[in-house]
Amino acid sequence: MKNKVARDIPDDILAATQRQVFNGVDYGHPVTQRVAPKVRATTGGDKIVASIDEVVTKTVADGMTISFHHHFREGDYVFNQVMRSIIDHGYQNLTLAPSSLTNVMNDIVVEAIQKGVVTNITSSGMRGTLGDAVSHGLLAQPVIFRSHGNRARAIEHGEIKIDVAFLGVPNADDMGNANGMDGDAAFGSLGYALIDAQYADTLVLITDTMKPYPNTPASIKQTQVDYIVKVDAVGDPEKIGSGATRFTKDPKELKIAKTVNDVIVNSAYFKDGFSFQTGSGGAALAVTRFLRQAMLDHQIKASFALGGITKPTIDLLNEGLVARVMDVQDFDKGAAASMKGNRDQQEIDASWYADPANKGAMVDKLDVAILSALEVDTHFNVNVMSGSDGIIRGAIGGHQDAAMAKLTIISAPLVRGRIATIVPDVTTVITPGDAIDVVVTEVGIAINPKRQDLIDQLSNVPGLPVYTIEALQQKAEAIVGKPKPLAFTDRVVALAEYRDGTLIDVIKAVKD
Amino acid sequence: MKNKVARDIPDDILAATQRQVFNGVDYGHPVTQRVAPKVRATTGGDKIVASIDEVVTKTVADGMTISFHHHFREGDYVFNQVMRSIIDHGYQNLTLAPSSLTNVMNDIVVEAIQKGVVTNITSSGMRGTLGDAVSHGLLAQPVIFRSHGNRARAIEHGEIKIDVAFLGVPNADDMGNANGMDGDAAFGSLGYALIDAQYADTLVLITDTMKPYPNTPASIKQTQVDYIVKVDAVGDPEKIGSGATRFTKDPKELKIAKTVNDVIVNSAYFKDGFSFQTGSGGAALAVTRFLRQAMLDHQIKASFALGGITKPTIDLLNEGLVARVMDVQDFDKGAAASMKGNRDQQEIDASWYADPANKGAMVDKLDVAILSALEVDTHFNVNVMSGSDGIIRGAIGGHQDAAMAKLTIISAPLVRGRIATIVPDVTTVITPGDAIDVVVTEVGIAINPKRQDLIDQLSNVPGLPVYTIEALQQKAEAIVGKPKPLAFTDRVVALAEYRDGTLIDVIKAVKD
Repeated sequence: MKNKVARDIPDDILAATQRQVFNGVDYGHPVTQRVAPKVRATTGGDKIVASIDEVVTKTVADGMTISFHHHFREGDYVFNQVMRSIIDHGYQNLTLAPSSLTNVMNDIVVEAIQKGVVTNITSSGMRGTLGDAVSHGLLAQPVIFRSHGNRARAIEHGEIKIDVAFLGVPNADDMGNANGMDGDAAFGSLGYALIDAQYADTLVLITDTMKPYPNTPASIKQTQVDYIVKVDAVGDPEKIGSGATRFTKDPKELKIAKTVNDVIVNSAYFKDGFSFQTGSGGAALAVTRFLRQAMLDHQIKASFALGGITKPTIDLLNEGLVARVMDVQDFDKGAAASMKGNRDQQEIDASWYADPANKGAMVDKLDVAILSALEVDTHFNVNVMSGSDGIIRGAIGGHQDAAMAKLTIISAPLVRGRIATIVPDVTTVITPGDAIDVVVTEVGIAINPKRQDLIDQLSNVPGLPVYTIEALQQKAEAIVGKPKPLAFTDRVVALAEYRDGTLIDVIKAVKD
Repeated sequence: MKNKVARDIPDDILAATQRQVFNGVDYGHPVTQRVAPKVRATTGGDKIVASIDEVVTKTVADGMTISFHHHFREGDYVFNQVMRSIIDHGYQNLTLAPSSLTNVMNDIVVEAIQKGVVTNITSSGMRGTLGDAVSHGLLAQPVIFRSHGNRARAIEHGEIKIDVAFLGVPNADDMGNANGMDGDAAFGSLGYALIDAQYADTLVLITDTMKPYPNTPASIKQTQVDYIVKVDAVGDPEKIGSGATRFTKDPKELKIAKTVNDVIVNSAYFKDGFSFQTGSGGAALAVTRFLRQAMLDHQIKASFALGGITKPTIDLLNEGLVARVMDVQDFDKGAAASMKGNRDQQEIDASWYADPANKGAMVDKLDVAILSALEVDTHFNVNVMSGSDGIIRGAIGGHQDAAMAKLTIISAPLVRGRIATIVPDVTTVITPGDAIDVVVTEVGIAINPKRQDLIDQLSNVPGLPVYTIEALQQKAEAIVGKPKPLAFTDRVVALAEYRDGTLIDVIKAVKD
């Protein structure tokens, strides 16, 4: 059955997963029944457990769904220790439901699949050896990819039922009050993990820093925590933060960043009280820098900045150019360290950030979002999941979610090396073209034809060449030529959900 | 059927309410399934409603359960406006489930009962014209009295299912982000109301102060809020705070306060890192003052202070004598105003404060609690609900909850006027004697015989006369004589639950 973005979702997949096909970005006003966890009462004397091995044997059973967060990113020491114990104990048939999988987790997940320990996975994304193995058919059941907002929605509605959450935290007390703000491995907002803490039947905290009771601010509360394990280290501080702390010096990236800024500043959304989400990486930091200057020049202040937060965004907060930072994740030490002392940097959970089924998410109030892409096609559909070789090497993250902004800008080079970014048809549709407003490249921009208002606002800006998306695609093709079509088998290895839980695309196994 | 405190709970009541009788203070480790609300999705454009009348007609239907909080205490303007609208619209057969009922709410609740608008009530307590009317049989169904922790437990398990919560807040933005810390009617912690916000199917905020979006800190979050109504005023600032801002000059109260302090200081619990809950009123402020001096003299610091918080407790926090204030409610402006700027004053909800069914409440970690009493009997059972005339004029509040402290002290005068406080049998058992450790009066103290450790610690303290509870009771009787037995009918007008949901006592209609 073809969905709204013309992707064919096999009938057997629809039947087996009881999913609907993607039918548009408007979620409407359905009334849904939330679920709630089972809770074991305790006064707390039994919470401290001596080792990860012991807590695994106390809590895990065959067939369970287990979860983790990815706030430690490439500095994570927790996931591997817990999975090692689970594999060595020989548990079988587990569903792995982390907020995302980072590269440091790849090899052990491949091992867990090979040994039958993990037989189902839902994640924001995957890369490296794991993405490669899944794309080659290692896992019998298709992986389910969900955005951060959709994961919150799925947990709140029982589509993901977490039996045991193993959450690494940089500090906790002996009852489980914990936050991400203090300790050697501090990462700031616990945004994604807060959903696990609220909905898991059993919650295990793993920390390297015990605090006196009661530990506040308590982002995770003692009322949610069953067990606490003290280990030597939960993460590598050097690898938790994003590498980028200065804005890019790459001329192409700078050009794109400046053009993104031109689009924002010349749009009707750039006015006092506007809101924005930028993102991480050197190019995003450059956008933030340009935006800062534009706000100063035009005496405009923002009501909030959203999303994964970086130090330059915190600087805007401290400078008074942004009134609030709504913080689901911090990408660097500066942003992480700032949260504790600044109540205007509000920690938000993934549901508040982006769940379409709740009573209003931050993304619903977002004016401007700047997002990246592996591919954008002439329908404005965006792929952030599969590479030009068809192999899984990406993550939805908050892409579908933040694209609910009134002005959603895709910032991408026309080509990367010998590979076009603007293509006739993306390999995998993750975010539908209906949610995308402007595509910015180093040669110029394309505006979604359904946004006549933006076409009017942006068509006569000096130094801002406006093309059709088809023209940009042809420019890319002129540089790198037509690629050979990718060869896939008929076997579906992954499902891409839209943020409302419908199927927006499937990913098939690659032909070697 | 007689329960553990020898109260006869009628079989028909047990059958009709499907309750168990109280069987002891130990809750154990049951695993229970929590419930969750129904949620109507919205992006927020439909949240602002023009008037209370309009929001009532949008949300209320016959037979529903509606809830309110009592953080505005005797300065509440919200309850009466909402109930006026509900009565005038002629809704019938509602269950009223506020966190408590203050005197300013009495007359309109009586009217609502008389008109069949309200046919069931659960509350922490009631007083005045309402308590009198209920004690005379006005309400066909028995009122259910629950402690703050038990109300949280009952809501979390669906025993109270809130259809619509009407929560007054001193500030909110147009999506519903709200806190109790700012605005003319600021009251500090939203502790009791946070449970309603989390579990109500429909949440209406009523505020007099609209804030720019996004309003932080957000104690109530936009993800929980359906409608917001702006009114002229939500409360009278002069009547929100407790009257007492200085400690008592009454010699008897001062004597009791000093004796309470002697009990604490000479107990084994008075050591670095201890924790305590005092309470409100001039006598409680005096205890806090004495305790401060004792902490300075002995160079002892507390890990946390709990409960309804007063300015003198905040002073201890600012002085470094208390490391954290865990704040479910603020009793005066000083405590309310302090929360916003001090992250060591942690807002906690009623579940975290005291729910026995969760994974550890603050009261489970409490060393010392000082509580009041209308009556204490020779079994150490405490009555805080019915007067010497048998009429309902009190509230459980956190009494049963805080009595989980390792050292629970009842502070009470031997007699009040011509009425004994220490009696052979309390009129209504609210907190069982098993949870009470020491009774302090102006003539001396009595120690629960099961606490041999405390008897050893306190028996040879200069100036601290120790009596048996029977001796105290006889001293009281020697002053005021034996009272005439109260005359009740057989009709049960109220049920007193213990904090675990079992029935600890019933209250019968008075004979006129």
